[in-house]
Amino acid sequence: MTKKLAKSAISQKRVLDAAARIFRDFGYAGTTMRAIADEADLKAGSIYYHYKSKDELISAVLDIGIHAVIDTVQNALKALPEDASGRQRIETAIHAHLSAIIDIGDYTLATRRVFGQVPEAIRAKNMRLRNSYGSMWQDILVEAQKRGEFRADANITLARLFILGALNWTVEWFKPGGRTIDDVAREFSSVVVDGLLDKQAGEISGSAQPPSGPRVRAI
Amino acid sequence: MTKKLAKSAISQKRVLDAAARIFRDFGYAGTTMRAIADEADLKAGSIYYHYKSKDELISAVLDIGIHAVIDTVQNALKALPEDASGRQRIETAIHAHLSAIIDIGDYTLATRRVFGQVPEAIRAKNMRLRNSYGSMWQDILVEAQKRGEFRADANITLARLFILGALNWTVEWFKPGGRTIDDVAREFSSVVVDGLLDKQAGEISGSAQPPSGPRVRAI
Repeated sequence: MTKKLAKSAISQKRVLDAAARIFRDFGYAGTTMRAIADEADLKAGSIYYHYKSKDELISAVLDIGIHAVIDTVQNALKALPEDASGRQRIETAIHAHLSAIIDIGDYTLATRRVFGQVPEAIRAKNMRLRNSYGSMWQDILVEAQKRGEFRADANITLARLFILGALNWTVEWFKPGGRTIDDVAREFSSVVVDGLLDKQAGEISGSAQPPSGPRVRAI
Repeated sequence: MTKKLAKSAISQKRVLDAAARIFRDFGYAGTTMRAIADEADLKAGSIYYHYKSKDELISAVLDIGIHAVIDTVQNALKALPEDASGRQRIETAIHAHLSAIIDIGDYTLATRRVFGQVPEAIRAKNMRLRNSYGSMWQDILVEAQKRGEFRADANITLARLFILGALNWTVEWFKPGGRTIDDVAREFSSVVVDGLLDKQAGEISGSAQPPSGPRVRAI
């Protein structure tokens, strides 16, 4: 990379980081190119050199957010042994997902807040990436179910939506210096894989429900 | 209620509903009293009759959102028998929470998007309500753990954050006419209480992990 190109890449990164913070704080409608330039401590012209419009910028911010998560999770899963269990895959994916969204917290929060506010075409483009990420999770869960590791009567799609929803919420309360990502990932995996129920005690004591076992889905 | 008061209440509700939609779509910074008046099809003066400022309005929108959830969940839990199990309480609370946030979807989405954007004093006031709601959940989980129904080694605080995160995410994908709230509530409860693991099969096949059982929390 030539010196000039390297400088351009640094300046582009500065624009993107500033844009993520401004979209996060002011929403899509409340964000102007001028405010992003001020936040990046650049002249407005430098921003237009990289991105022609607010829409190009928000599209880049949304895509960077989901790409970071996809790359981190894919790499973590690739590092697992071939015969890794569903539990291991889920714990690994949860850990990687949490690490990524916390690492790029401004992008994550900007996405959470403006995703429903941006023009439909931008949302649809980003949604394709999000759907491919959802498929990765679906595959992990379906594979573990096929191998008989996970319950045959579990609704995998809802379980996936449940897991990803819980993960994405962590950016609201996770603070550096508090619980570690390791702890959170381990406990989250344990809730999803093991459940809260004490298998020894079952549900007999103090329960008006029938004892545990495969439950009938439709009433 | 006199006719005049009733009319005033209707007009106030119209202002709030409009405000929720405008905050949802334009964020805190992007919202003006003028835009809310237009959305409510009222003169700007009628809005100021009810709310003196944008901050009074967003505070009302945030508080209505969490109050609706608290009231719905509390009432649903009160209707349960005294000896209801932890599973029943969780399934009931999940169902009520989902019903409430989907019923007042505009307020829920406005909250999700602007909560981190509003002035600190407004956020702190609303946070007190949210914390009291969090305590309700904590109590359900801790009680079930004390009775031996839930695993002694489960981290209840993280489990609660996990559940509430997943629930609040549903507004992003739940569409009327698709899955019913009953179905979603039942499956979510099942993930949380039972876990995905097939208890008959265990984790022995194809797993590089030690077999299931109480897991050591700290490494």
